[in-house]
Amino acid sequence: MNDLAIHLTDENGKHLYEQIYEYIADEIREGKLLAGEKLPSTRSLADYLQVARSTVELAYDQLASEGYIESVPYRGYYICRVEELYRIGTSGGGLRSEKKGAGQEDGQPGQKDSRTARYFDIDFSPNAIDMNLFPFGTWRKITRDILSGDRKELFALGEPRGDLELRKTVCRYLHASRGVNASPEQIIVGAGNDYLLLLLQYILGRGITAAFENPSYRRAFRIFSSFAARMVTVPSDENGIRVDGLLASGANVAYVMPSRQFPTGTVMPIGRRTELLRWASSAEDRYLVEDDYDSEFRYRGKPIPSLQSADTAGRVIYIGTFSKSVAPAIRISFMVLPERLMEAYEKNCSFFSSTVSRIDQTILNEFILSGAFERHLNRMRKAYREKHDLLLDCLQPLLNRYRLSGEYAGLHVLLTSRVPAGEEELLERAAACGVRIYGLKEAALAPFETDYATVLLGYGGLDQERIREGIRRLDAAL
Amino acid sequence: MNDLAIHLTDENGKHLYEQIYEYIADEIREGKLLAGEKLPSTRSLADYLQVARSTVELAYDQLASEGYIESVPYRGYYICRVEELYRIGTSGGGLRSEKKGAGQEDGQPGQKDSRTARYFDIDFSPNAIDMNLFPFGTWRKITRDILSGDRKELFALGEPRGDLELRKTVCRYLHASRGVNASPEQIIVGAGNDYLLLLLQYILGRGITAAFENPSYRRAFRIFSSFAARMVTVPSDENGIRVDGLLASGANVAYVMPSRQFPTGTVMPIGRRTELLRWASSAEDRYLVEDDYDSEFRYRGKPIPSLQSADTAGRVIYIGTFSKSVAPAIRISFMVLPERLMEAYEKNCSFFSSTVSRIDQTILNEFILSGAFERHLNRMRKAYREKHDLLLDCLQPLLNRYRLSGEYAGLHVLLTSRVPAGEEELLERAAACGVRIYGLKEAALAPFETDYATVLLGYGGLDQERIREGIRRLDAAL
Repeated sequence: MNDLAIHLTDENGKHLYEQIYEYIADEIREGKLLAGEKLPSTRSLADYLQVARSTVELAYDQLASEGYIESVPYRGYYICRVEELYRIGTSGGGLRSEKKGAGQEDGQPGQKDSRTARYFDIDFSPNAIDMNLFPFGTWRKITRDILSGDRKELFALGEPRGDLELRKTVCRYLHASRGVNASPEQIIVGAGNDYLLLLLQYILGRGITAAFENPSYRRAFRIFSSFAARMVTVPSDENGIRVDGLLASGANVAYVMPSRQFPTGTVMPIGRRTELLRWASSAEDRYLVEDDYDSEFRYRGKPIPSLQSADTAGRVIYIGTFSKSVAPAIRISFMVLPERLMEAYEKNCSFFSSTVSRIDQTILNEFILSGAFERHLNRMRKAYREKHDLLLDCLQPLLNRYRLSGEYAGLHVLLTSRVPAGEEELLERAAACGVRIYGLKEAALAPFETDYATVLLGYGGLDQERIREGIRRLDAAL
Repeated sequence: MNDLAIHLTDENGKHLYEQIYEYIADEIREGKLLAGEKLPSTRSLADYLQVARSTVELAYDQLASEGYIESVPYRGYYICRVEELYRIGTSGGGLRSEKKGAGQEDGQPGQKDSRTARYFDIDFSPNAIDMNLFPFGTWRKITRDILSGDRKELFALGEPRGDLELRKTVCRYLHASRGVNASPEQIIVGAGNDYLLLLLQYILGRGITAAFENPSYRRAFRIFSSFAARMVTVPSDENGIRVDGLLASGANVAYVMPSRQFPTGTVMPIGRRTELLRWASSAEDRYLVEDDYDSEFRYRGKPIPSLQSADTAGRVIYIGTFSKSVAPAIRISFMVLPERLMEAYEKNCSFFSSTVSRIDQTILNEFILSGAFERHLNRMRKAYREKHDLLLDCLQPLLNRYRLSGEYAGLHVLLTSRVPAGEEELLERAAACGVRIYGLKEAALAPFETDYATVLLGYGGLDQERIREGIRRLDAAL
């Protein structure tokens, strides 16, 4: 705990509790007090500042009611994770997600939240994952074994596109689980999706017109916006992005999530996939960027192979990540380039140094080869399926008022109001009972109007009790 | 050892030994046979392929003479590290550097090498470092302690600009060792210098005209070339980049290495630094990118503070890395942005996810805080100084023919011929006796002509015996 060197004064006409409140709030916002840190007890801070204990209590109450800190019974006051609310465009995840052990993944929108000064004790973040399931022991053991091996070469700089051994393993995994056809040479390993998307400006060039659905994954949209000559949004229907819209837009690169669109949850059926591939192969410079961000989680039916697996013309750039399936801290994503883009990669990108340490690559490789990854995925699938099923049960009472969609896969579902309702209003009503839910428009790339609001409910980071309690409150509030 | 499934045929008119040679050479080039792997003995491969043992011996001899494999007495044949020779523009480091435990660092030029088909047993790579000095035990222990702590939050995604704790530590370290003035907010942690330089396109914009000395750090030049509107090379003299040249060039961003220019080894004196800072502050959009890549290693006199430390106008972007001072696998570099660029960073870059895992950041932070980093630096300084001093001793007999420069700092020195000589010729003569040295022109950004060739001799990755033997051979050959 840092010292709280609060300088109290009578001169500015502010109450003492206000000065304490403002000092601590500033420290938290500026990152000087960190999430998870314990505040001094009200008694000790009162002693230290020579003020009445009730003054400190008032300040702490105010901070707690605004979500800066939280009171943990019998233990004291702790700083909440709020700094992300003040950063623009970083991934969401909601208050306190870190302390609950929930993680945020790569593939998600994020934006400044107007509901800052609120205290949410249940956060249906569509981006949170359940870090309680992570096999820390196995990871530790693999790390220890690898570091004990005196393998000095692991401390050297690895190949720009990633270690061959890891690329071979990823290749096999992608082929087996997603039907991806590629040789290890076509795989580029990088520190996160964002980095790999940045590289695309050197592979596809900056003259491209990039098409996105609306809503879509905002962060990818922003990265493409940072280099593409032109950006377009294209209408989608219940099967995903519309190919007639794509044709009309004049785009030559389309960013799609066929296995499960974020945020709509749409799974692209085979017919639309074929249409898309036909669109791509019918001109020389057309490409599809397939973001396969959470294809690991499907709770009904057989997994649908990737778009890349059906691509005979070499037009799909496939992107996947271990940030969601292993842990967000694992900054290892990969991109599978079609053969015809390898020359551009070699020419324009292969001189960039690798962004992932060989040690981390070796740990991940061993994690996969040892079977621990498969076991971890199975455990996560089972846990998420149970949460998903519970959520669907709990939502029954709401289904006369809301239409459910996006279920049976991923880590969130969507509710659309059956009667006219505004999104903001629904989020407000949820917030008023301490529940944070997310609006479809928060993932909007361009404004869109609808009379029937849609909200997102993520369940990855919540335990069963919180899911029950959260939906109970929403049932009363919405 | 992979199977060598060589399909021998009579049909293409090639000798059997040629077919074996070509098959293995292809496998090595394609990365299917990896550096350090042992080849089957000539006898067992001959048995397997049903050919005469002399046929396999001929193939192996050819491979060895071209540097693909090497014969280790009493042990057999091993694959050399050659793949980097086939990659364009990746960092050098020379044959076999990995097997010797030498690493490559971030800050170095690299290019296709015409001396591919050669066997070097002594490599004076200016980029190699001595990984034997790395405190593996300490690193292992810190890693184990951190992973044992059940600190689940380390597996979550960290802040885009890096963990606050690490940024605070870097801040203190930079202030103490390099005089850098900055708050932790101004520090951006990223996976390697290349990544951070890529971000500059979003901070400085793409309209810039970027100036480089010639020769300079080619990789940085290439990265700037990938986004800058215009690139210029500016003449330098014995004090570094010439400010009149900079003015004449119309550049608004200059990339400099004042503490030790690569590859010339020039240390920029205070007068030129002042001139440079004056140049930068005399127009609104001018910036200096200070690459402080190996400021840790100085063997005489006091370290010179960074250019950033003298920058009162906020025009220096300071870049440093732990890849050289800790280990190349540690993909952690940092950039210190001036206050006036923070807004552009926030607006255009802060949404990119962090490229460094929180675990790695925490390990590095603890490595520094525990004092292990300082001890490691001291040990490296001492070892490199000894190598440096030995090299200077050994070079005495050559100094009537060659002028020495770049000594007393960094990890390489330069020799310039006193009589007209071509660079290629010197490299060839060294290669003929199994010694790899590097030419100044290999770091050239634009062709430059001189009658007096300059070669680079790096000593970081060589032990004392190799330094002695290498210079003995060079003395005879050059």
